[in-house]
Amino acid sequence: MKRNIYLRTIPIEEALTRAKDALDREALLTVERIGAERAAGRITAEPVMARYSSPTYHSAAMDGIAVRAADTFLAREGSPVRLLTGDGFVFVNTGHPLPSAFDAVIMIENVVMDGDTATIESPVAPFTHVRRIGEDIVATEMILPRHRRISAYDVGALLSCGAYDVDVYEQVRIRVIPTGDEVMDFTSRPAPGPGQVVESNSMLLCALADEWGMACQRVAPIRDDPDALAAALEEGLNSDAHIVVIVAGSSAGSKDFTRATIERVGEVLVHGVAAMPGKPSLLGVARGKLVVGAPGYPVSSVVCFERLLYPLACWLSRAEPKTRQTVAATLARSVPSRIGMVDFVRLAVGQVGDEYVALPLSRGAGSISTMTKAQAVTQLPPEAEGLESGATVTAELLVDAGELARTLVCVGSHDNTLDILADRLMRGDPPMRLASSHVGSMGGLIALRNGASMLAGTHLFDPESGDYNFPFLAKYLPGLDVTVVNLAIRHQGLIVAPGNPKGITGIADLARDGVRYLNRQRGAGTRILFDHHLAKSGLTPDRISGYDREEHTHMAVAVNVKTDAADCGLGVFAAAKALGLDFVPLARERYDLVIPAAYRDDQKIAAVFAVVGSEAFKEQVRALGGYETDWSGRIMAPGMGLPGEPAA
Amino acid sequence: MKRNIYLRTIPIEEALTRAKDALDREALLTVERIGAERAAGRITAEPVMARYSSPTYHSAAMDGIAVRAADTFLAREGSPVRLLTGDGFVFVNTGHPLPSAFDAVIMIENVVMDGDTATIESPVAPFTHVRRIGEDIVATEMILPRHRRISAYDVGALLSCGAYDVDVYEQVRIRVIPTGDEVMDFTSRPAPGPGQVVESNSMLLCALADEWGMACQRVAPIRDDPDALAAALEEGLNSDAHIVVIVAGSSAGSKDFTRATIERVGEVLVHGVAAMPGKPSLLGVARGKLVVGAPGYPVSSVVCFERLLYPLACWLSRAEPKTRQTVAATLARSVPSRIGMVDFVRLAVGQVGDEYVALPLSRGAGSISTMTKAQAVTQLPPEAEGLESGATVTAELLVDAGELARTLVCVGSHDNTLDILADRLMRGDPPMRLASSHVGSMGGLIALRNGASMLAGTHLFDPESGDYNFPFLAKYLPGLDVTVVNLAIRHQGLIVAPGNPKGITGIADLARDGVRYLNRQRGAGTRILFDHHLAKSGLTPDRISGYDREEHTHMAVAVNVKTDAADCGLGVFAAAKALGLDFVPLARERYDLVIPAAYRDDQKIAAVFAVVGSEAFKEQVRALGGYETDWSGRIMAPGMGLPGEPAA
Repeated sequence: MKRNIYLRTIPIEEALTRAKDALDREALLTVERIGAERAAGRITAEPVMARYSSPTYHSAAMDGIAVRAADTFLAREGSPVRLLTGDGFVFVNTGHPLPSAFDAVIMIENVVMDGDTATIESPVAPFTHVRRIGEDIVATEMILPRHRRISAYDVGALLSCGAYDVDVYEQVRIRVIPTGDEVMDFTSRPAPGPGQVVESNSMLLCALADEWGMACQRVAPIRDDPDALAAALEEGLNSDAHIVVIVAGSSAGSKDFTRATIERVGEVLVHGVAAMPGKPSLLGVARGKLVVGAPGYPVSSVVCFERLLYPLACWLSRAEPKTRQTVAATLARSVPSRIGMVDFVRLAVGQVGDEYVALPLSRGAGSISTMTKAQAVTQLPPEAEGLESGATVTAELLVDAGELARTLVCVGSHDNTLDILADRLMRGDPPMRLASSHVGSMGGLIALRNGASMLAGTHLFDPESGDYNFPFLAKYLPGLDVTVVNLAIRHQGLIVAPGNPKGITGIADLARDGVRYLNRQRGAGTRILFDHHLAKSGLTPDRISGYDREEHTHMAVAVNVKTDAADCGLGVFAAAKALGLDFVPLARERYDLVIPAAYRDDQKIAAVFAVVGSEAFKEQVRALGGYETDWSGRIMAPGMGLPGEPAA
Repeated sequence: MKRNIYLRTIPIEEALTRAKDALDREALLTVERIGAERAAGRITAEPVMARYSSPTYHSAAMDGIAVRAADTFLAREGSPVRLLTGDGFVFVNTGHPLPSAFDAVIMIENVVMDGDTATIESPVAPFTHVRRIGEDIVATEMILPRHRRISAYDVGALLSCGAYDVDVYEQVRIRVIPTGDEVMDFTSRPAPGPGQVVESNSMLLCALADEWGMACQRVAPIRDDPDALAAALEEGLNSDAHIVVIVAGSSAGSKDFTRATIERVGEVLVHGVAAMPGKPSLLGVARGKLVVGAPGYPVSSVVCFERLLYPLACWLSRAEPKTRQTVAATLARSVPSRIGMVDFVRLAVGQVGDEYVALPLSRGAGSISTMTKAQAVTQLPPEAEGLESGATVTAELLVDAGELARTLVCVGSHDNTLDILADRLMRGDPPMRLASSHVGSMGGLIALRNGASMLAGTHLFDPESGDYNFPFLAKYLPGLDVTVVNLAIRHQGLIVAPGNPKGITGIADLARDGVRYLNRQRGAGTRILFDHHLAKSGLTPDRISGYDREEHTHMAVAVNVKTDAADCGLGVFAAAKALGLDFVPLARERYDLVIPAAYRDDQKIAAVFAVVGSEAFKEQVRALGGYETDWSGRIMAPGMGLPGEPAA
């Protein structure tokens, strides 16, 4: 296996400078003359001068009579001035040109007509109610400076003053070439098999380019074949594209190909940037064009597109890069970071009380869902070793700021009913958004304790008391006044393959040879439940093969069973049903939502209560299977246990 | 003249509610199924579930060997574990599926190969360097909620998990019908004559719609003919447009037509909103579609489009309206406002020291240039009678926030050389923006005194001392440490029609019958200059016909002379030359830039100094005609007077 030798990774700013120094943008991006009516979003190459004034002539701004101001100076209440039609005044409507003999307009409401005579009782100053020549724009003045991104308003101004054609820089054109033996072309709507992925970075870039006002064209994926890739790059360089992007596959071989292919026809200037994700990004120049080697992992690709390609594309077209709105947010969990690299951390952000709270999402560079679930991104600088919980971060918003006030962050245990809650909240008026941070039940309670969340989802069973959640609230959140409301009663059990091929009937079977268990993470209510039942059956963790293999959600456990990566895991019935798996019931448990009293009256919490108690919600939950909704929406108290069982 | 009877004007919120109550959006905007790859910007109609997991199988996240974690637990430095190929390990590259016998990956760097044996010296936990099934997305989970505006990242996620087609709301389609006898169709590139305007609001709306992700189609302007307008509306309602917009001409008759035309086929719900500009906006419903009557004045039209049409269009498609970023800014001049109306005030905004300073622009609803020159807009609420200088306003940004730090506001006297300065600043690296507030020389000095500006342009002549600017600085800004740098020496004189038909040779001729003078506004350096020369010639203001008619810029004076709205005005040679007018020289004067010492080292001010002292700038200024650049960029001191004249 040939090792890929990286150049020293360099900071993003240095990478951009190297590329700019090697490109001749005057030669690469030409100027074109286009009609002003379709110039919105384009960048002016020269200042634009007005051809005509606007208005072109003095005109009446009101309906009334045009007069000479000097004729009215003696008019007073009780001592009116009379003007004769023709010589003294004429009627005008708004927009009519002002006859040159006159220099002011009196509103018709202030005129008393008597045959041909107009009587007025107060004087007017020159230019009263007159829209003056050039009041808006004067011929020959500079209407737009150079290097201006033409706005919709600018289009209006350009047409108003007769600047019908404008010199603008070409629209930046990008060609993107996805590559990789493992990538499948989405156009055939494929079902990915082992080691295969549906190629998506190219269309993500096309969608970004559209936002940026740039053109982007994608070609079908190229296999990891040096000659095929060279041919595709050649075609891209010969096209009218200014920038050619090669998206790497994820294999080691694929990464080598991109660099070598560029070096056949040009020069690689940057191979590796000090950014995570995004490190294995390449920048090169070939035949005067910019060539970008984007990493295969989706989030790495996004960093490459947004932090390298976009600034360079803006520089080419003299466009001012758009910056995202930022808010200051308090970090609710500590975040590690790499020294010497900028870490791009995706965040779930919501309002808690008066401040914004940020919860870091997974760091996986391959997880595009961290971009779809995030409300913001923050950059941890190279010198940082990480940030502690409670630190303030600058959160670059991926959503509209107005949304944050209606975004509720729920921290805690994952459950499919949270998706139903999220969907019903979106149907409300106004719609509310639910952002979830799945850190397990204990993580949720700790978030509440730290003031990092308004809502926690938890299903912690206390074997000693036989009660749910309250014993943990008493132990870990003493003194915090909370409201506990039930979301649903869930059925937990052992998720097994269809037909239960290994004949698993209970916990005891997990100690058998050849039975591979898959556990949940520490702090998860499901894990605590498993440990309880494990102890009840007289077994210890070391007896269970796979006890130390951990997944973070019910669905992940189910998927592992479905693909035969595990034989069995404890999870909710809903997860088994969703994937067509069999289910060996083990226990019922209570999944509650915990809300600090301080937020009880918040609009977002009120919406949650309304949804959780609604029949529509309960119906959808029951349809999932494996849930009971008798207590959904009901306020819980210590010792209530479960419906139908004696109080704890 | 038929008077137009307005319904009571109502607040914008109430207008929106009336329209929503009268529209059935379920019926009007249907749902369509489109490919995910082209769904960016569209709104999901239903939650979208993942079809496939991503990754689909456990795969190696690094290049190395796949092992069973349990086999490695005893490995230690000095006490290695040896694994045999095939049964104990296999080689894997990043992205390869993990064979089901193994559950962890060891990086190749940490493996010592010896023939078929791999030797390792430290243990690994299960799932180390393994990208797990469903780590990103799990089949059947909710990947996007309903009513989600699909982002570029969402497109990536949808394709990754096989959600190849999505149900989204139709794209909103708008048809815009410009009307008015006075409007000219820009497509013929016309030259507007008396009482004519080039129609532009329709293309402004089309450009806005494009930003909003909506479709917009414009038809050629319709004359003020009730039957023609009715036919155009009929065609619009029969088309696939969801919203039909009729843009009024500015005449009284035109406004009547819109309402009557809608009432022929539907119902007018709103006629008049409590907003300035924007008041004469109409909202109606006809055949289940929204009909909008937009005012003819450009800025009124913008308010109608952005505050009425846009929120309703978003509501139709369940889109979250985008909000602009806001900054808190200090108002540098008091602003009047109408009680009972929301006033939309356009602002020039720049950074002065650590804060943002806002200068209100003209309130003219017909002046589209107030939208092109503004960096922000603020809303003065209905209960406000106005705001005092020094008040804090919420400025909704029309430009990217990053631009503001590089936007320099110059307050004071207008001069064409400021356009050259602005253009050269835009050529710098980084480019700097110059926003001008033309309030005359005295207004500029007062702005400096109030800390409202970093830069003032002034050309105030003091007859007593014969010096420029310094006497006024001493009188009005005592104690403020400033740097004064010369921009240029200007030639001022009487601007007259070509051929000087009235034979004006000097100030004395202005007292003749039939000579119409046009003055500059109080506080303008040019007015002060005129008053000085008037006194020198022994005349008084009452002897000058037109002394009380005022314009605010040299160019406006010149345009008045060009269109025979005045015979003569005092102005700079450059203005006369620009419009092909004759010029009777009167005086040379010094135009300086004044900068408080506190800002001397600001990056923006440094850029100004660099430009003003540059040969390129001086060349462009001399090319205008009527300027001398011997002192351009030179620091001025009291008593320097003018080049070539004895010191004052």
